[in-house]
Amino acid sequence: MKKSPFTPISSEARLIKQITKHTKIKHESTKKGIGDDAAVLGSLKNGEQLLSTDMLIEGVHFDPAYTPLGHLGYKSIIVNISDICSMNGVPTHVLVSLGVPNKYSTEHIEELYSGVHKACQNYNIDLIGGDTTSSPTGLIISVTIFGDSEDRPITYRHGAGSNDILLVSGSLGGAYLGLQILEREKEIFNKNNKSQPVLDKYQHVLERQLKPEARTDAISIFKELKITPTSMIDISDGLSSDVAHICSSSNVGVKIFEDKIPISKESQRVCEELQISPTICALHGGEDYELLFTLSPKDYSKITHIEEFAPIGHVTSGSDIELVSKLGEPISLIDEGWDSFLRKKQNI
Amino acid sequence: MKKSPFTPISSEARLIKQITKHTKIKHESTKKGIGDDAAVLGSLKNGEQLLSTDMLIEGVHFDPAYTPLGHLGYKSIIVNISDICSMNGVPTHVLVSLGVPNKYSTEHIEELYSGVHKACQNYNIDLIGGDTTSSPTGLIISVTIFGDSEDRPITYRHGAGSNDILLVSGSLGGAYLGLQILEREKEIFNKNNKSQPVLDKYQHVLERQLKPEARTDAISIFKELKITPTSMIDISDGLSSDVAHICSSSNVGVKIFEDKIPISKESQRVCEELQISPTICALHGGEDYELLFTLSPKDYSKITHIEEFAPIGHVTSGSDIELVSKLGEPISLIDEGWDSFLRKKQNI
Repeated sequence: MKKSPFTPISSEARLIKQITKHTKIKHESTKKGIGDDAAVLGSLKNGEQLLSTDMLIEGVHFDPAYTPLGHLGYKSIIVNISDICSMNGVPTHVLVSLGVPNKYSTEHIEELYSGVHKACQNYNIDLIGGDTTSSPTGLIISVTIFGDSEDRPITYRHGAGSNDILLVSGSLGGAYLGLQILEREKEIFNKNNKSQPVLDKYQHVLERQLKPEARTDAISIFKELKITPTSMIDISDGLSSDVAHICSSSNVGVKIFEDKIPISKESQRVCEELQISPTICALHGGEDYELLFTLSPKDYSKITHIEEFAPIGHVTSGSDIELVSKLGEPISLIDEGWDSFLRKKQNI
Repeated sequence: MKKSPFTPISSEARLIKQITKHTKIKHESTKKGIGDDAAVLGSLKNGEQLLSTDMLIEGVHFDPAYTPLGHLGYKSIIVNISDICSMNGVPTHVLVSLGVPNKYSTEHIEELYSGVHKACQNYNIDLIGGDTTSSPTGLIISVTIFGDSEDRPITYRHGAGSNDILLVSGSLGGAYLGLQILEREKEIFNKNNKSQPVLDKYQHVLERQLKPEARTDAISIFKELKITPTSMIDISDGLSSDVAHICSSSNVGVKIFEDKIPISKESQRVCEELQISPTICALHGGEDYELLFTLSPKDYSKITHIEEFAPIGHVTSGSDIELVSKLGEPISLIDEGWDSFLRKKQNI
């Protein structure tokens, strides 16, 4: 068989590598280009400017069958705020572009924007522009966000040092579990469209999936306690994938203790019901929008009283990403986080 | 028949109006939000920052059947540069997000990016980030651009004053004619896929459609001659639509003289062949990415020697947009420029 001259796109990371190898930086103001959660421009009066962008596409990032449009608008802003948080910055402005299929009415788009406005209100952000166009198929939302470092140090993925403590905010796995419940109920409804989904007892995990929040509160705590994480990333693709980004950027390894990974009680309960391992949900589920960060041991001692931050392991001098199981066994962790080009997670 | 509770989306302008009525500006740094070619932030060390974003969607903004991917990448940057030019600014940085269908290979995306890189090189812009994801259907390109006012006055749509001269850079209608040729050849090819399109003699109009340039040279001329247009917009939707934006924002009317509208010789020839009126192409065609601007009479006297700028009319104190035909007849101009929600132009 003749070999195709074309190389299929195998992963987002590899595609970005291909694209960026020809990128040349010409402006002095560009402090950081491609390669972190946000770009950094050094042209503000005070501090530095953080820029990030995320695109949400119907059928890839959301299913309109069970995604209320107001929540979708809200989430589209949150996922971008989370990128600014992960650089230790404060979000200030957004641009929102929409590709709108003709099945959507003005009222639908108003509902979507009610969520956008609510997120802007809750997080003190100005909506300053965008582009609105028709789309021949699904709904597309592309958001660009601007943030401000406010004269405090920016936290990159690349600063983790050996013996730093690895921490995570909040709890993990809930967003993925919410998605599983929604998919299950959709399937039941498709088989019998008279059935009414009973979703009350899944409120926590559904909120984690449909209407997540961004951890600006964690950034405020760092500011207040005069702490700067040595590295930080937000958990959008799953702990396994996002810790791997910190490790490769910082040229370090990590040891994570399974029994330290924070899972909420509600998530535990849903895991039991669905017979899924909570650890697997945390590692490979994604969309939790919690912050994963490293602290020098001296800074760690200042935050041990903060319940929202859980130490889950520490940085090592090697390059191994190791999970120490609840039984004390070391397991080499493979990055199996979410990648839109792979579409489906294989091992969950 | 029961009336539907939903209002169909009738035009982009009306949709934007609906969306923005709930927008509240909270930050002092926001000098201009929604409502011009770019937003303006007053937080730079020197000058002000200009921000704009444009989304190109397969099947709405381009047809992959006849759009080389390198040109498409180039054009996606140009249309954004043009928005910065229309504010009298200089482009500096871009973020490029892609939604990639699985029919595209790594090589296709590299080709697209070769055009992005070329535009960045030609216009001295840094590519600093973006988002890359899969798309279930067509290719999506969403670009956000940043520009710098470099301590010179920003030109808004709203500054046109009575008796100002209305000018346009370059020539109009070519991009629309290029599209007509491409559509004609596609139809011929679809009927007989052995036919080879002969496109040599249409090079000018095809370039205007497939690989336009942005008028940064005009901004340099303004800078050099210490001139500031009183209002400016880029011609993306067609002269009729874009002059209407200046008029409504500035609360003025205009009188345009048909015989002054610049049409290139090549465009004239293609118009004759296709039996289309060159004036109609200029008025309603769009995608020329030329600058439409107004100058106070005293500044106008400084640029009469610049061949690239054609005076096409003047600002009036009323609100009428009037075209004086070649026969001297006044015609009331209706905005029939390109709107993606209308999909098809009705009167061309």
